[in-house]
Amino acid sequence: MSEVRHDPVTGRQVIIAQDRANRPHAFVSDPPLLDDGDCPFCVGRESNTPRAIAEYAPPRPSAAEPWWIRVVPNKYPAVRELNGVAAASPTCTSTAKVNEIDRRRINGHAFFTAEAALGSHEVIIESPRHVVSVTELDESVMRTLFHVYRDRLTSLRTAGQLAYAMAFKNVRPAAGASLAHSHSQLLATPFVPPQVELELSHSQAYFADHGQCVFCELLRSECRGGVRIVAESANFVAWCPFASRCPYEVWIAPKQHACRYESTDSARLDDLAALVQQLVGRLEAVHPQAAYNYLLHTAPINESRELPHYHWHIELLPRLIKFAGFEWGSGCYINPIPPETAAEQLRA
Amino acid sequence: MSEVRHDPVTGRQVIIAQDRANRPHAFVSDPPLLDDGDCPFCVGRESNTPRAIAEYAPPRPSAAEPWWIRVVPNKYPAVRELNGVAAASPTCTSTAKVNEIDRRRINGHAFFTAEAALGSHEVIIESPRHVVSVTELDESVMRTLFHVYRDRLTSLRTAGQLAYAMAFKNVRPAAGASLAHSHSQLLATPFVPPQVELELSHSQAYFADHGQCVFCELLRSECRGGVRIVAESANFVAWCPFASRCPYEVWIAPKQHACRYESTDSARLDDLAALVQQLVGRLEAVHPQAAYNYLLHTAPINESRELPHYHWHIELLPRLIKFAGFEWGSGCYINPIPPETAAEQLRA
Repeated sequence: MSEVRHDPVTGRQVIIAQDRANRPHAFVSDPPLLDDGDCPFCVGRESNTPRAIAEYAPPRPSAAEPWWIRVVPNKYPAVRELNGVAAASPTCTSTAKVNEIDRRRINGHAFFTAEAALGSHEVIIESPRHVVSVTELDESVMRTLFHVYRDRLTSLRTAGQLAYAMAFKNVRPAAGASLAHSHSQLLATPFVPPQVELELSHSQAYFADHGQCVFCELLRSECRGGVRIVAESANFVAWCPFASRCPYEVWIAPKQHACRYESTDSARLDDLAALVQQLVGRLEAVHPQAAYNYLLHTAPINESRELPHYHWHIELLPRLIKFAGFEWGSGCYINPIPPETAAEQLRA
Repeated sequence: MSEVRHDPVTGRQVIIAQDRANRPHAFVSDPPLLDDGDCPFCVGRESNTPRAIAEYAPPRPSAAEPWWIRVVPNKYPAVRELNGVAAASPTCTSTAKVNEIDRRRINGHAFFTAEAALGSHEVIIESPRHVVSVTELDESVMRTLFHVYRDRLTSLRTAGQLAYAMAFKNVRPAAGASLAHSHSQLLATPFVPPQVELELSHSQAYFADHGQCVFCELLRSECRGGVRIVAESANFVAWCPFASRCPYEVWIAPKQHACRYESTDSARLDDLAALVQQLVGRLEAVHPQAAYNYLLHTAPINESRELPHYHWHIELLPRLIKFAGFEWGSGCYINPIPPETAAEQLRA
C-alpha cells in the first residue's frame, strides 16, 4: 500500500512502499572493513596523520590513553585548504576572497563555470582505541565529542569567508566509511549546501506565512501524536520523520527553539550526547552492525543573526538499503519501512 | 586542487576533488550477488514471476531460448498497481483520479499530507540466460531492449492519468540490484519526479532567455571542445558531464533535438543500443565488474506537446564510490575523478 509523502520542512517527496521490505536482499549486509593492522587513527600512530589542530585529553592521561579525541586535517580533503598545511588556527584565514578566485570558463563557453572549492576538511578521531561505532565510546568521551563539534564550529565561524560547516559521520562501509576507526568529519565550504538552503528557504517561507518556526510546530505535533517519537530527554526529542527517506531515519532536535548548535550550553550537549548514543544503540539492537550516517544541520557560519525560522537538528540515516537508478534519476527516495513502524521497533 | 562546478542544465553544484582518488579504499569492490541457483528470471522459472505483460521472441524460438525479453509486473512494486493484478493492458486504466484519492491528514495536522502512490512498476527481463551486464547480451537482444523501452513508454502514455515513466537499470549490488540476472525496470508515477522537474524548469528558463535548447547548445559546445567526449555514433553523442556527480558518469543524447524517447525511429534505436553497449564495455574495461545504473530522462508521459526546450537523454552512473554523510546532508556530490580524466580513460 504505497504512498507518496511530503516532508513538512522541505517539501521533499518520498515513496513509502511497505511491500518492498519483503523482497529478497531487501537489506544490505556489507562485509566489515578489513583492518589492515595499520590503522592510522590508533594510539601510537599519530605520525600517520597530519599534525593535530586540537587534542582533548582525559583527566589522567596514560600511555594507552594519552588523548580522548584528536582533530586533524583530512589527508585527502574534498576542499582546498588555503594554506596547504595543518595549523592550530583555522585553515581559511587567507585574505584571498573565497568566491572570487579561480572562476573560469572552459572552451570559452559561458555555461561551464567553476570556482575553487576552498574550505576546511577536518577529521575528528574519537578514541585512541580501535572502536567502530559511537556505542563503543565511553560516556565521557561521547560527551566530549559533542563539545568538540561546538568548539570546531565556533572556530570556523571566526575564520570568516566560509559560508557553511557541516559535521557528519560515516560508520561502516555501506555508509561510505573508508576507515573503520570511529571518527567524524567537519567539512566547511564557501557556499551553503543545497539541502541546507532548501531547509532555510522553506522554513523562512513557513515563518512568513505562519509567524512560527516550522520545526517548533512539527515537534509539538509529533509529541502530541506520539506515533513517530522514538525517545526524549530533558532537552531533546528524537523521532522518525513523516517522510523518512530511508528505514529507521531519526531526527533529533532541541525542544526549545535554537538556530545554532554552537550556542548550546555544555549541560545540554551532555544530554544530547547521551541521547544520540542511546539512539544508535537502539538502531544496532534492531539491525546489528547497521551502517549509518549522522549529520548536523545548523545555521550557516557566515550568518550572525538569530534566525527565528530555523532550528538546528541532527539527522541519523541508517544505510540498510541501497540507493539505485530510480533515486538517482528521480531525486525521490523509496523507503520500504513506514516511519511509524520504524519508531515502534526503535522504541521497543 | 578541488573545485566547485555548476551543471549547465540543472545548476547542480558538484565538488571535483581529485586528491581524494588517492585515499585508501577510494573505490568500492562489492562482492557479487550470490546466485542461489534459483533465479526467478531464468528460463524455465517463468511461473516464479507474475504473468508477462509482453514477451519478445527470437526469430526461431527454442527450448533454451523461447523468448529474448519478458516484461512482467514487479513482484515488490514501489507503487500501488490500481488493478492489483498483472495484465497485458497498462495497469493504470482505472477511472479513479490518481491524485485525488487517499489524500489524508495525520494527527489532524495540515502538514502531514500524503497521497496514494499509484502507478505502474514493471520489470524487463533481458535474457533467458543468467547474464549480469548488458555487455553480455547479444547485439540483437540489446537492440530489442531499446525497442521495448519505446513500446512500454508508448503503452503507459496511452494509459492516461500518470505523469511520468522512468526506465532505469541497476547492475550489481553496489548499484542497488537485488537480483543479479540482467534486467531493467520501468516505474511510472502520478507526479513528475523532482530531478526531471528541475531539468524541465531550468531548460525552459534557458529557452526563454536564449531561444535555444540548452542541451543542443551543450552538445555543440562539448563536440567543439572534445575533452569530455567519450564516443559518437551516427545519431548520438556520449560525454562525461562537466559537473559529473560520480567517477565516469556518462550522458548520451541524440544529436538532433528531440524531447521524447518514444518518438525515436527503430534505426536510431538500434544505433543507440550499440552505443550504450559499447560505453558499458568501455567502463568495464577501465573498472572490471563495475556496478552501474543507467536511466532514461524523457518528456513526461502526460505531456503531448513537442517541447522545444527539453532533450531526452540517458544518464549512465557507475557506482564506484559510496554516497556518505556529507552527500546526504548537503545534497552536493564529491567526485574524485575529473570528467576530463574520466573521458580520456574511457576513450582509450
